[in-house]
Amino acid sequence: MSKFVLSVLVENKFGVLARVAGLFSARGFNITSLAVGETEDPDTSRMTIVVAADEKILEQVKKQLNKLIDVISVQDLTEGEHIGRELILIKVKAPDTKVREKIVKVVDTTGAEIVDVGKKSLTVEESGDDHVIKALVELVRPYGILEIVRTGKIALRSDSE
Amino acid sequence: MSKFVLSVLVENKFGVLARVAGLFSARGFNITSLAVGETEDPDTSRMTIVVAADEKILEQVKKQLNKLIDVISVQDLTEGEHIGRELILIKVKAPDTKVREKIVKVVDTTGAEIVDVGKKSLTVEESGDDHVIKALVELVRPYGILEIVRTGKIALRSDSE
Repeated sequence: MSKFVLSVLVENKFGVLARVAGLFSARGFNITSLAVGETEDPDTSRMTIVVAADEKILEQVKKQLNKLIDVISVQDLTEGEHIGRELILIKVKAPDTKVREKIVKVVDTTGAEIVDVGKKSLTVEESGDDHVIKALVELVRPYGILEIVRTGKIALRSDSE
Repeated sequence: MSKFVLSVLVENKFGVLARVAGLFSARGFNITSLAVGETEDPDTSRMTIVVAADEKILEQVKKQLNKLIDVISVQDLTEGEHIGRELILIKVKAPDTKVREKIVKVVDTTGAEIVDVGKKSLTVEESGDDHVIKALVELVRPYGILEIVRTGKIALRSDSE
């Protein structure tokens, strides 16, 4: 089983997400991440799906996706160069000023940003590829992670040589 | 109809996404955005769902979500302060060096970053709230947008006063 990255352009219509999700679940595929957002055209949405699957069966799913009502196009970004990014928000324990200062220092060594300061917590935001995200999580883990929210990966074909 | 932000913690199990999406589509709700990613615990995922809905019916959906197998908790982040962020990748036309330099200058005035340089295009990455994302799209629109991918919003309860 390998991980695949699919970019699926769909009509922005009611029920299309349920149909796409249903197609994957009917095949027993576990979706690692899914991001659905608006595109330039208000009538369409783009889904970026990361899925662990057997290559042969995935080929069938891609064909079936193409046949679904409201699916406009299916792009497999797994092969070839692509730009893959995701976003994470991490709420970290920060019970006092001393700890808070320590976390701020640690976060300053990365590209991450502190986006919320509470009495007992700090919230850190970072975007990047899998490695960047994983590194940040490990960096703040010792302070105690209260909550993590991730967007899942979005991806575009790279045009660089 | 108002826009609601729900944060749904689920068991990382097969079919749960299809069940949640099915529940919304059965009610005729149009999901504006959906982001599903791993959390700190490899056995759970968190879905952030932005949905336009009638408040009364949404209350019923929240109850039904709570009853679904593999749904651990449902948080409504609509009321009260929350940190909401999303990520966007925009591929912009850049046919020659002159245009490329112009776009680089424009992007430099924002917090955005150029993450891919092709012979005929540039790819710009930005994270932020709705307003930041919208402003960037408008800023690069005159150059010609080739492709947009967005993650959809993720959100956390703010702890600041």
